Amino acid sequence: MNEIVSRQIQLRNSIIGIPKPEEFQLIEEPLTEPAVGEVLVENIFISVDPYMRGGMRSVDPGQALQGGCVGKVIESSSEKLCVGDYVVGYLGWRDYYVATDDNLQTVNTSIAPLQSFLGAVGMPGRTAYFGLLDIGQPKEGETVFVSAAAGAVGSIVCQIAKIKGCRVVASAGTDEKLEWLTDKAGVDAVINYKKVDNLEEELRRQCPDGIDIYFENVGGIHLQAALSVMNRHGRIPLCGMISQYNDVEPTPGPTNLSSAIGKRIKIQGFIVTDYENRNHEFYNDMRKWIAEDKIIWEETIIEGLDNAPKAFISLFTGEKMGKVVVRL
Amino acid sequence: MNEIVSRQIQLRNSIIGIPKPEEFQLIEEPLTEPAVGEVLVENIFISVDPYMRGGMRSVDPGQALQGGCVGKVIESSSEKLCVGDYVVGYLGWRDYYVATDDNLQTVNTSIAPLQSFLGAVGMPGRTAYFGLLDIGQPKEGETVFVSAAAGAVGSIVCQIAKIKGCRVVASAGTDEKLEWLTDKAGVDAVINYKKVDNLEEELRRQCPDGIDIYFENVGGIHLQAALSVMNRHGRIPLCGMISQYNDVEPTPGPTNLSSAIGKRIKIQGFIVTDYENRNHEFYNDMRKWIAEDKIIWEETIIEGLDNAPKAFISLFTGEKMGKVVVRL
Repeated sequence: MNEIVSRQIQLRNSIIGIPKPEEFQLIEEPLTEPAVGEVLVENIFISVDPYMRGGMRSVDPGQALQGGCVGKVIESSSEKLCVGDYVVGYLGWRDYYVATDDNLQTVNTSIAPLQSFLGAVGMPGRTAYFGLLDIGQPKEGETVFVSAAAGAVGSIVCQIAKIKGCRVVASAGTDEKLEWLTDKAGVDAVINYKKVDNLEEELRRQCPDGIDIYFENVGGIHLQAALSVMNRHGRIPLCGMISQYNDVEPTPGPTNLSSAIGKRIKIQGFIVTDYENRNHEFYNDMRKWIAEDKIIWEETIIEGLDNAPKAFISLFTGEKMGKVVVRL
Repeated sequence: MNEIVSRQIQLRNSIIGIPKPEEFQLIEEPLTEPAVGEVLVENIFISVDPYMRGGMRSVDPGQALQGGCVGKVIESSSEKLCVGDYVVGYLGWRDYYVATDDNLQTVNTSIAPLQSFLGAVGMPGRTAYFGLLDIGQPKEGETVFVSAAAGAVGSIVCQIAKIKGCRVVASAGTDEKLEWLTDKAGVDAVINYKKVDNLEEELRRQCPDGIDIYFENVGGIHLQAALSVMNRHGRIPLCGMISQYNDVEPTPGPTNLSSAIGKRIKIQGFIVTDYENRNHEFYNDMRKWIAEDKIIWEETIIEGLDNAPKAFISLFTGEKMGKVVVRL
């Protein structure tokens, strides 16, 4: 093989507070040839996701970043993967990488476009699916409240909840997002949390029968307000708390957590990788729902590896619709 | 029947902050004769429990108090209950009451003394049993941390966790309680939370393998410290948050609640009455465990209805051992 030099984004230092573009750096790294069982992959899309902020709290200088990515096998010493195969991997934030075939999943682009394997039919979609269905256990007629509802995870949660016969109330921070949620995703009520004086009161207005499931993506006042409006035996899948990821000082939790006792509320954290042995359930359902036009999604595609830090930072300003990916 | 006048304790007003004896008043109330299906009961022991504080936040002037009690049927117009039967009822805080037989349970004093049907073999015991076993799902070799561990609920949680093969770490606020927990209840490690500078550090020392189940009776710094030391897939049955019951201003929740996401922690509130159809499981196990000396308990018996308010207030100062009951 010709020697391939991969460009990759590293962190200069641990990040405190809101990440700034200058805290990231682009470096070049020569790649070794694939050994037996390995392949060389050219990344086509890389993912930026809020969870990545956690790993940036404490890093060694020059530490490589990782993350979801989808690319094409361009050299193979593997019996399982051929040149030309499209694969999802976990070495994003770079142009090329060499990895063992065990850590890569081939993708079937008859279900959805390539980049969507980083979004609706990828990790965020599975997070929505297993978090809502396994932890949330929605029942027909129940009310589901979703925060960050126009995001990669939230937008899928909203639509699966509708498929399951629930009333869906969605919170987001721009009117464009609310319009999409109402007109395209078919939610029943929307809240622009940046425009309401009292989120709890607004939530009570929009959820006259209370909340049975709060799909938690945000933390802070969203959790506090939701707890107040939760019904008995309510469920709160804890997926993320994006409002707190850049906090310099720890944010106090909700003052009304003790209401979970009398209301028998279940608050449960989960990580999507725990459901890997059930991924077939997700793909079977999603293939059907997509074909029936019951699940749609938005993507914001940002061009160029150089812009990956800005794409990542945009997750916290809330300016982008749906899943944010970077095209290389 | 001769007309019976029952003395009962009422609240003068809604209680804000730590309850004071003068906020309670003793009044007399003539009772009507039992109608068909009803009985007249003479209370022998009445219960004071932390949960009662919740109902005191907003009361009408002169509102009667309710609570667990155990007494003797002294007149019966019921086909189910005879004069002389001992029954557990829910009209405590008074000498006598008339109630329909449906709301009363007869007690079998071959299992335990009468007053213990308000404690170890009553509501607090069932709370410990179902909270630990159903929500906590203890497995052999796991570490269980119990706060308010010398209390009516906590002391039973500790011993059931030991029966299930767990390592038990118990927190309480006096050395006398810690001694009882170590020498009598057989827990593996104890923490006097009033004497440690940093509860989280002490908890880490006493739980070198982390915490798998935190049985939450206390709230505040206990929950914060426990969350930090919890293992992946840990469970937190939310039974009570006694440290917060007298708060005038709402107490912020733990700052580390978001750690429940990555650690896949389940935090679940519960109320013992939801398990009424499974009470036989509790009685079957407890009868056996008591006979095998695997479950013991402490009771603090306070004399006289007049002293019921003081008995109740003592729950929040933490001065009494085990279950506090009032003997009439």
